[in-house]
Amino acid sequence: MLSSQPELDACYSNMMRWISDEYHGLNGSQYEVLETPPSPLEFARLVQISRPVLIKGYKVPAQTLWSNNYLIECMGDQKISVAVTPDGRADAITAGQDGREYFTEPHVQQMTMAEFLLKISSDKKGDVLYVQTQNGNLYPSGYFDPSSRDGSSECEKLRRDAPSEISWCSEALGRSPEAVNVWVGDSRSMTSVHSDPFENIYTVVRGTKHFTLFPPTEAWCLKERSYPHATYTCDTPISPLKLSPTNYPPVRWSSIINPDDSTTLPSGAHPIHITLHAGDTLYLPVGWWHYVRQSGDITIALNWWYDLQMRGAQWVWLSFLRGMGKDVMSGNPAQMNNADTTEKG
Amino acid sequence: MLSSQPELDACYSNMMRWISDEYHGLNGSQYEVLETPPSPLEFARLVQISRPVLIKGYKVPAQTLWSNNYLIECMGDQKISVAVTPDGRADAITAGQDGREYFTEPHVQQMTMAEFLLKISSDKKGDVLYVQTQNGNLYPSGYFDPSSRDGSSECEKLRRDAPSEISWCSEALGRSPEAVNVWVGDSRSMTSVHSDPFENIYTVVRGTKHFTLFPPTEAWCLKERSYPHATYTCDTPISPLKLSPTNYPPVRWSSIINPDDSTTLPSGAHPIHITLHAGDTLYLPVGWWHYVRQSGDITIALNWWYDLQMRGAQWVWLSFLRGMGKDVMSGNPAQMNNADTTEKG
Ligand SMILES: O=C(O)CCC(=O)C(=O)O
Ligand SMILES: O=C(O)CCC(=O)C(=O)O
Repeated sequence: MLSSQPELDACYSNMMRWISDEYHGLNGSQYEVLETPPSPLEFARLVQISRPVLIKGYKVPAQTLWSNNYLIECMGDQKISVAVTPDGRADAITAGQDGREYFTEPHVQQMTMAEFLLKISSDKKGDVLYVQTQNGNLYPSGYFDPSSRDGSSECEKLRRDAPSEISWCSEALGRSPEAVNVWVGDSRSMTSVHSDPFENIYTVVRGTKHFTLFPPTEAWCLKERSYPHATYTCDTPISPLKLSPTNYPPVRWSSIINPDDSTTLPSGAHPIHITLHAGDTLYLPVGWWHYVRQSGDITIALNWWYDLQMRGAQWVWLSFLRGMGKDVMSGNPAQMNNADTTEKG
Repeated sequence: MLSSQPELDACYSNMMRWISDEYHGLNGSQYEVLETPPSPLEFARLVQISRPVLIKGYKVPAQTLWSNNYLIECMGDQKISVAVTPDGRADAITAGQDGREYFTEPHVQQMTMAEFLLKISSDKKGDVLYVQTQNGNLYPSGYFDPSSRDGSSECEKLRRDAPSEISWCSEALGRSPEAVNVWVGDSRSMTSVHSDPFENIYTVVRGTKHFTLFPPTEAWCLKERSYPHATYTCDTPISPLKLSPTNYPPVRWSSIINPDDSTTLPSGAHPIHITLHAGDTLYLPVGWWHYVRQSGDITIALNWWYDLQMRGAQWVWLSFLRGMGKDVMSGNPAQMNNADTTEKG
């Protein structure tokens, strides 16, 4: 009685295409630009719409203070975790020596801010360095959790220059952030296309960031697949990086390597390009796909991640759009789509 | 290559069932109860979650003023439109004399408030009367539209007793209502299960209302079908009502006649029962299915309808859940599901 896999796939694609066409027909590819930060109530209304907004004029002391010298002095001999890759592609799909494609995590090296900034400023040919730990390296989740005894983080000495919360966002959502991150890199680093279960407020402190965005309804255009896991390793501090497969579970990730190359995207995809200069802030709503590049000598950004609320329909809607219900269509509720893979990012 | 209709139907039901199970697993059947009305910001957060909320303590002068005598005196000889049916089921699925089921609109009679209240209080056996015009009989859309030249309505003499807007709702949504309605009926009137493209604030002024609610994810449980249109007519003012088929286009409506009879519902349905007494207010989010009964001699209610916003994903999500994309699954984008039927309610 049940359909064959190609038939199911066709039904499924037709439906996803219908949804994304309807969504795009209604919303287009426009995004709002605010000349000043919103009030909590204004921001709450933007969250209801859940589309990206470019916000100007949100001031953070870091924007005026964070020169290289200031950062070096402030951080002193505190070590920070730096992602090291041969090509700037950390947490991305990369071919291994065996020709297979892997979801590859960076090699992580500890160094002082002085060492990091010296390397990134002088060596434009060798390995690519990126501070992108994403574990709340400025304010970790423990900082916001009264029951946690550890609120410390690698960049905590920089806290006086950036608030732990964005008042208009915390008030609109009725909660505190889950993590606040500092990102420091050069023009060779990029972040592969992915979506997060977070409402995201992203501010550029120095340099320029280029976001390519897709709405959650275009998840099907980004063709998530299951990839074996690998990590860059190096045998000695001076030996070259190599891609080493691990025993970790496979990772579900978009197979679109460069979403800015429109020939690799289905015709139903409608990328939105937003460039953020120093002082610009992006509201990146939960579930929106983003591919991020940077230009300028050194680009520094801050972001505040607020957990998705596990009430209402948003989580179900986002999971559905990512194909979580797909295999259920054939009538076998146990056989989940890529149930054996880990969710990342 | 494409699937047969029964196969498509099975795929589709499996997917809808998956979505509604996930939604129910996350949210259960609970609803929040507020002891006092929310602030605009609190309400904005409730709108983000889009689940029903019982709000106590929202005061409207009508609650203390609207006795029969007061209403009769205030309204004077102004005529109002009253829905008349043999059984209290206006805008509902009813069998005609030919045995076919019709979506049947009530006979509408004009009378004064005095005539209406006299009839409804004295005659508990004959035709059922219900003031339920739903066209903004207190404040119509023209009242809120600066470009409209007609903001008048049948019950406008009662306006001093009920505000045109609910401040915490208008501020949270950033817009004014689309219509404000007065509902007056007795325990024999009910409203058949349906959903509206409105955020709804519903306040009981006198008597008791019983809501049976289903989330938008359970649309599939309510089995919308396409019904021919009919209306109750009467040949002379004293002749009995008869169900008369019309030439209007068919109407898409739920085929579940009594959702309180659980034997008529699929096992995936999770009705939520909320009873509102005089002074209670319900936030009924956009797209939620509702079946409404009333008890008490005369029940009076007020409701404020705020248009669904045609931005973001909500309209697409609600349409999808109602099966609008279903026929597209088979690969024929033109062949829309019941595209020939009119949307009501
Ligand atoms: O700045 C980047 O490289 C990536 C930012 C990102 O993925 C995020 O903020 O979620
Ligand atoms: O009170 C009733 O009978 C129905 C109310 C209703 O359907 C609504 O407010 O949308």
